[in-house]
Amino acid sequence: MKNFVVAACSKFVFKRSYVIAFSLLVIFASQFVFASGGGGEMAQGHGVSITLLWIAVVLIAAKIGSLVEQFGQPSVLGEILMGVILGNLVLVGVDVFEPIKHDGILAFLSELGVIILLFQIGLESNIQEMRKVGVRALLVAIVGVVAPFILGAFVVGPWLLPGLDTVAYLFLGAALTPTSVGITARVFKDLGKLRTKEAQIVLGAAVLDDVFALIILAVVSAIVTVGAVSVGMVSWIVAKAILFLVGSIVIGHLLAPTLGKVFSKIHTGVGMKFTLAVSFCLIFAYIAGFIGLAPIIGAFAAGLILDPVHFRYFKAPKMVHDVNKLMKNESDDLKQKMEKVIEPHSHRHIEYLIEPLAYFLVPIFFILTGMSVALETLFNTEIILVALAISATAIVGKYVAGFVAGKVKQNIVGMGMVPRGEVVLIFAATGKGLGVLSDDLFSVIVVMVIITTLIAPPILARQLKK
Amino acid sequence: MKNFVVAACSKFVFKRSYVIAFSLLVIFASQFVFASGGGGEMAQGHGVSITLLWIAVVLIAAKIGSLVEQFGQPSVLGEILMGVILGNLVLVGVDVFEPIKHDGILAFLSELGVIILLFQIGLESNIQEMRKVGVRALLVAIVGVVAPFILGAFVVGPWLLPGLDTVAYLFLGAALTPTSVGITARVFKDLGKLRTKEAQIVLGAAVLDDVFALIILAVVSAIVTVGAVSVGMVSWIVAKAILFLVGSIVIGHLLAPTLGKVFSKIHTGVGMKFTLAVSFCLIFAYIAGFIGLAPIIGAFAAGLILDPVHFRYFKAPKMVHDVNKLMKNESDDLKQKMEKVIEPHSHRHIEYLIEPLAYFLVPIFFILTGMSVALETLFNTEIILVALAISATAIVGKYVAGFVAGKVKQNIVGMGMVPRGEVVLIFAATGKGLGVLSDDLFSVIVVMVIITTLIAPPILARQLKK
Repeated sequence: MKNFVVAACSKFVFKRSYVIAFSLLVIFASQFVFASGGGGEMAQGHGVSITLLWIAVVLIAAKIGSLVEQFGQPSVLGEILMGVILGNLVLVGVDVFEPIKHDGILAFLSELGVIILLFQIGLESNIQEMRKVGVRALLVAIVGVVAPFILGAFVVGPWLLPGLDTVAYLFLGAALTPTSVGITARVFKDLGKLRTKEAQIVLGAAVLDDVFALIILAVVSAIVTVGAVSVGMVSWIVAKAILFLVGSIVIGHLLAPTLGKVFSKIHTGVGMKFTLAVSFCLIFAYIAGFIGLAPIIGAFAAGLILDPVHFRYFKAPKMVHDVNKLMKNESDDLKQKMEKVIEPHSHRHIEYLIEPLAYFLVPIFFILTGMSVALETLFNTEIILVALAISATAIVGKYVAGFVAGKVKQNIVGMGMVPRGEVVLIFAATGKGLGVLSDDLFSVIVVMVIITTLIAPPILARQLKK
Repeated sequence: MKNFVVAACSKFVFKRSYVIAFSLLVIFASQFVFASGGGGEMAQGHGVSITLLWIAVVLIAAKIGSLVEQFGQPSVLGEILMGVILGNLVLVGVDVFEPIKHDGILAFLSELGVIILLFQIGLESNIQEMRKVGVRALLVAIVGVVAPFILGAFVVGPWLLPGLDTVAYLFLGAALTPTSVGITARVFKDLGKLRTKEAQIVLGAAVLDDVFALIILAVVSAIVTVGAVSVGMVSWIVAKAILFLVGSIVIGHLLAPTLGKVFSKIHTGVGMKFTLAVSFCLIFAYIAGFIGLAPIIGAFAAGLILDPVHFRYFKAPKMVHDVNKLMKNESDDLKQKMEKVIEPHSHRHIEYLIEPLAYFLVPIFFILTGMSVALETLFNTEIILVALAISATAIVGKYVAGFVAGKVKQNIVGMGMVPRGEVVLIFAATGKGLGVLSDDLFSVIVVMVIITTLIAPPILARQLKK
């Protein structure tokens, strides 16, 4: 590891020095140039929003972060790290980027980014293969929720932090349960391993995991607010979740072909294809959120349901037609080879269409995730020690879930479940809002998110490359 | 025209009845389903924004609007009309879509949409050809600003509405000056005529026109607030505008190749290419807005500057490589034909990458433009009569500008300058804010925008097809 860091640094310093110089220049130039404009929401004149500039800054920062790919790391790690840097430059007196953290539009684009990402992952996942690993994913999800919850709420919590209310321990345990499917999925995607069995198990488990975590949150919240849990309430949440997951797949499969047919009557162009797919994703995400699930679950389900076959009424890209026309009188051998080159552009056209939207939105999510990491929480030794122990608990609790994954590389499944993300932060914020979690315990959970987020991608990448 | 309408209606009713039925079903179903959710900003659960749903509604509405293409109309007209319908359903008691008008995120996405549109138009425009028509565009712009201003402020205004303050007439005249480049550009684009001389003249003139209109607004506003105009102030605005337009093209041409080189060192992938292009556009748009010009002018300039040559350090799409490899041992004839099919995908790759982003954002702009049309302003006979006269003035004032366009189809240039849009509404809002424009005069201007917006696209389309 040390060798890696040294080699990385020297390669970085010598070969990429002008990139670094350029980045620093941009950072300090912007500090100077936008010192006047940074405070207000709107510039003068036609009322242009400064958010335009922030989007550009975030996109460029993400791409500078992707330098980590040159050291074999998944670019998502670089994006998160660049976010951490941007978000904590204020510690060295550079505060121009602070407005990014409080920009409501960026926050929305970031949410949209992770929705589009999960939609992409869904599109690339195969529902048949997903079904094959369904039982194993369910097992992994159950263990991956139960283990960290019990460890956090009944073992490590009371042992490390004696004397708190029982509900505080319960909340701590609950906050350890939801996997961040976005981060793991990006690592698999960055390394081209989305279609492996391990990836499919992790994705399935992470989605189910979110559902289970939600049930736990509802139960724990009910204990805090009402003092007890009603069986009816829990059943209702469970029923909603099952209804949505099963219902969306069944109804979606029935509806998608008809929708494709109806809309192809209006227009068979590429724009219509794009609109149908994106609207499908957004509506599913909204419904999932509306019934109390995470919108990303809806987006993932929409991606799973949509299939190239639903777009058969639409035109293939013009290029595909033109190539086929040219090939008409050529040898069968050449035809077949050409077919192989062109096929993805026809068959997976919808994925190609979504890609630029993802280029635009997804980095915003990861940069903002990184920016939400407040490094000053690491300045308190006690918090950091407790947080390290809790993080170890969080990692172990998920890692053991890999052991029930059956005949696959169990360490990959386990490590894939480790990253925690935005859902944990929602849990922690709920607990703080209910007055159950103290500021310190909140910080501990935030540090746990940081550690699991930063540790999992490089380790997972290393395991996947073996 | 009547025949066209009858034929259109019957074709529409008989052949597309299920599409209409489907649309109505969706509208009324949504009225029912979202009656509870429509009021709040956030749904329950993970705090999903209802904006997700609105984006889907807007995108689908825009695509239903594109049905007009089947009657030979540019799809932008259909999008605006669908916007008008959605925005005025409240008149028949359907109020579910009202929140769309007040959604801040949609407003931003709409602004971003017209920015991306102008960037696309800039990318497709050729700076050499633009330069060739430069002088003529300048002439058209000058006449297109002076004629409607004089007609409005000194002839038709005082004649139709006697007894108002001089500044009210000045504001009315000023509000007639700025062409909506977005609408015209979309018509040319929809019909594949962007590279004609007429289109280039109109685009150049519309951009300059916006600059001139801005100067007029500044002068008129100064007369109202300060009571006089300082030469220094006017010179400063003019200087800023010239500096930006000339400066951005000079600096952009110097900077773009270096930027391409530096960023290609980080990553030569498609994502980097996309990020560079979009960031360039956003930064130029922001700077234009920051110095008091319209952001769309900056986006257009960015598109004009960026050239495929700036991306030569980046990878061509994999498909292009694969095809070239397959063609290596084939006949020169086949090679050349294949080259022709594949070439745009390599050479114009950046335009293909931006396209899906435009599919996502541009319809939001046109639907929201349509939705801002309040049909109830048309219920007042007096207002509508005055508005008709003012609209005629607005149309004549721009149409005559075509006469100085030299040896081209002058009627196309003239009609291309007719549509008024968002900039006029900004002018009107400024005048209302300063207490110069009465509510009635404001409504008159709004109706003028409606009429010019709805009248120009079908007429222009008809002229272009001749």
